[in-house]
Amino acid sequence: MTTSTPSGVITITTDFGHKGPFAAVMKGVILTRFSQARIIDLAHDIPPHWPPEAGFWISRSYRYFPKGTVHVAIVDPGVGTEREIIVAEHDEHIFMAPDNGLLAPLLTDNSSAKVFCLDVPGLRRHGIAAPSLTFHGRDIFAPVAAELASGRLAAKDIARPTTQWTPGWLEDPVVSKDRVSGMIVTVDAFGNLISNIDASLVERFDRPVAAIAGHCFAMMPTYGRVKPGDYLALINSFGVLEIARAEGSAAEGLGTDRGAPVVVRESE
Amino acid sequence: MTTSTPSGVITITTDFGHKGPFAAVMKGVILTRFSQARIIDLAHDIPPHWPPEAGFWISRSYRYFPKGTVHVAIVDPGVGTEREIIVAEHDEHIFMAPDNGLLAPLLTDNSSAKVFCLDVPGLRRHGIAAPSLTFHGRDIFAPVAAELASGRLAAKDIARPTTQWTPGWLEDPVVSKDRVSGMIVTVDAFGNLISNIDASLVERFDRPVAAIAGHCFAMMPTYGRVKPGDYLALINSFGVLEIARAEGSAAEGLGTDRGAPVVVRESE
Amino acid sequence: MTTSTPSGVITITTDFGHKGPFAAVMKGVILTRFSQARIIDLAHDIPPHWPPEAGFWISRSYRYFPKGTVHVAIVDPGVGTEREIIVAEHDEHIFMAPDNGLLAPLLTDNSSAKVFCLDVPGLRRHGIAAPSLTFHGRDIFAPVAAELASGRLAAKDIARPTTQWTPGWLEDPVVSKDRVSGMIVTVDAFGNLISNIDASLVERFDRPVAAIAGHCFAMMPTYGRVKPGDYLALINSFGVLEIARAEGSAAEGLGTDRGAPVVVRESE
Repeated sequence: MTTSTPSGVITITTDFGHKGPFAAVMKGVILTRFSQARIIDLAHDIPPHWPPEAGFWISRSYRYFPKGTVHVAIVDPGVGTEREIIVAEHDEHIFMAPDNGLLAPLLTDNSSAKVFCLDVPGLRRHGIAAPSLTFHGRDIFAPVAAELASGRLAAKDIARPTTQWTPGWLEDPVVSKDRVSGMIVTVDAFGNLISNIDASLVERFDRPVAAIAGHCFAMMPTYGRVKPGDYLALINSFGVLEIARAEGSAAEGLGTDRGAPVVVRESE
Repeated sequence: MTTSTPSGVITITTDFGHKGPFAAVMKGVILTRFSQARIIDLAHDIPPHWPPEAGFWISRSYRYFPKGTVHVAIVDPGVGTEREIIVAEHDEHIFMAPDNGLLAPLLTDNSSAKVFCLDVPGLRRHGIAAPSLTFHGRDIFAPVAAELASGRLAAKDIARPTTQWTPGWLEDPVVSKDRVSGMIVTVDAFGNLISNIDASLVERFDRPVAAIAGHCFAMMPTYGRVKPGDYLALINSFGVLEIARAEGSAAEGLGTDRGAPVVVRESE
Repeated sequence: MTTSTPSGVITITTDFGHKGPFAAVMKGVILTRFSQARIIDLAHDIPPHWPPEAGFWISRSYRYFPKGTVHVAIVDPGVGTEREIIVAEHDEHIFMAPDNGLLAPLLTDNSSAKVFCLDVPGLRRHGIAAPSLTFHGRDIFAPVAAELASGRLAAKDIARPTTQWTPGWLEDPVVSKDRVSGMIVTVDAFGNLISNIDASLVERFDRPVAAIAGHCFAMMPTYGRVKPGDYLALINSFGVLEIARAEGSAAEGLGTDRGAPVVVRESE
């Protein structure tokens, strides 16, 4: 079984920024159908039309929510075109996103996930009809999330099983004999550079160092182990390699941003 | 009847930005009086002291919330002066804002709305007393919203009916024989330029085009119908004319912002 | 008694900004343990690694929340080092923060507060174990807050009384014969300059003026008492001296920011 008793919790991840009522009206639609929903904003600062960062954060964050939570992600450059909508059950959580590669970090190489393709015309039977062509977050995702989170509907009631979905936009880290090559996928408010290199890929090295932007930094267990202003690499609290600067911004100090390549190798 | 059973939901719209505890203490006051309130941030990025954008978004968003919701808007350059506070019942929702034109988009030409003027000194009877001179959002709007949302008080209990209120700050779109002239009222996080021209004003044209900033764009049903980088005009999901750029920012590309004039006319 | 029946409300104050899922996963952890928690974001825009502003806002805001609320603050440059975690009971609210001076505005000169030092290894008994070295907000503060807010645990169950804690980073205002000298601790979204000078320190003057950045401004009761564009000083709604500009930004107009000295004295 990959599903669980609904927790009544819904998380929302978007590229709407913090401007306007776009996330708010989604919440209004949810509360109209399921008044006891507890709605958590996961992140709204995903770069516009850039699904990979949404998928990265959802795949790294969902386990901190109660089992039976519904995670909705709206980064949807293809809204109004023929793109499908994916509903997935995985690890006793439910995920919902446009079929644009967003959920790839959860679905790839994950044989236990049950993946469905939403039957949008069939939603009419559940009173979800006549969506706008430009805001499926409000008109499809929100009401469906409310039904799933309340337990009134399950994925199988509104979607057909599928084994095909759009692959992720980013390459997985490349592992060679003496190095692991990945990239920076996001930068947090402190300027910490967060990569897609999982801790498990770093374990192979005895004394790993991280090379980025022409510099090379030793791995440390935590921020407090270097002097303020010094750089370090560490496995962060989400289980991936991060380049940080103690009490400063690594992004600013290195002139580096999302998309930069980063390599882990043995110290010389 | 224009009221409804209270939904327990309160929305908050302000120009406080996302800095400091200003919206949070309003929520604290609400929860102190009505612990089961469900509070939704509608928007906090209204330009400082600019009520029209708050009224625009509330009038276009309220219907996505449960009937019986209380919508509170605090864009209040006149706080501490003699300005009144308006409470309105309309379409089974309740609205509350300073009497500075903010609610004009809901009240103008709307004979079914019941409009009240808050009796601030009389709030003392309900334990709402000694407000600060500078933060009525926390000291008047929040406790009143809690009482209205809980159903313990109705507008008529704390406010007197009125037929006078401050008109809106923006001109309505001007409709002439061959064109409709409006303006951009807000720009979203994608750079989409959102106007005050309602869909109903565009229906009169067979092949409408939108002219803005020296350019002229054809109307399309959705973003995905043009190539990335191309511009389009469309009726957006809130029912108004919008100028967008597929996978880009129309505001940046056209060098255009809030306040810009926009004209809809027949294609030549 | 300094404690109260738990209200079920938890406030969160951080320097995480509004980027990424950092506050969200704290909420997920809280809801996993205490599904009925009502979680309010107090402020997330504290300057990175600057505890004094968090302490300032919490000390000025907590009283607007229900008694029995748990206020959690994560501004934690020392995470992963030997720094302790403080839990304090004061005025029937509970406060929790790293022991880095953050809570000083609440604890200093406050003999009624009961202060505890969290027994982190002992949390294992309550299923709170193996925290990351870099995100105690999620791995320690959030689960402990859930237990405190639900009433299942009290501070004394998980922390030992202490009379020692790190002092605040900012000097208190200096009171001399003819003047009170303080500083700007934060700037709000309107550009209002908010100081650490409490109203009680201004009462000694008959006709107080505030001197800042080479200018001197008369005290007024509210913003509406001067012409748009003019400056004023006032006691704001949080009970401290503020320098404001009617319908404008004092911070921008004066070229002044957080940290600037401000002096109150008698008008000449």
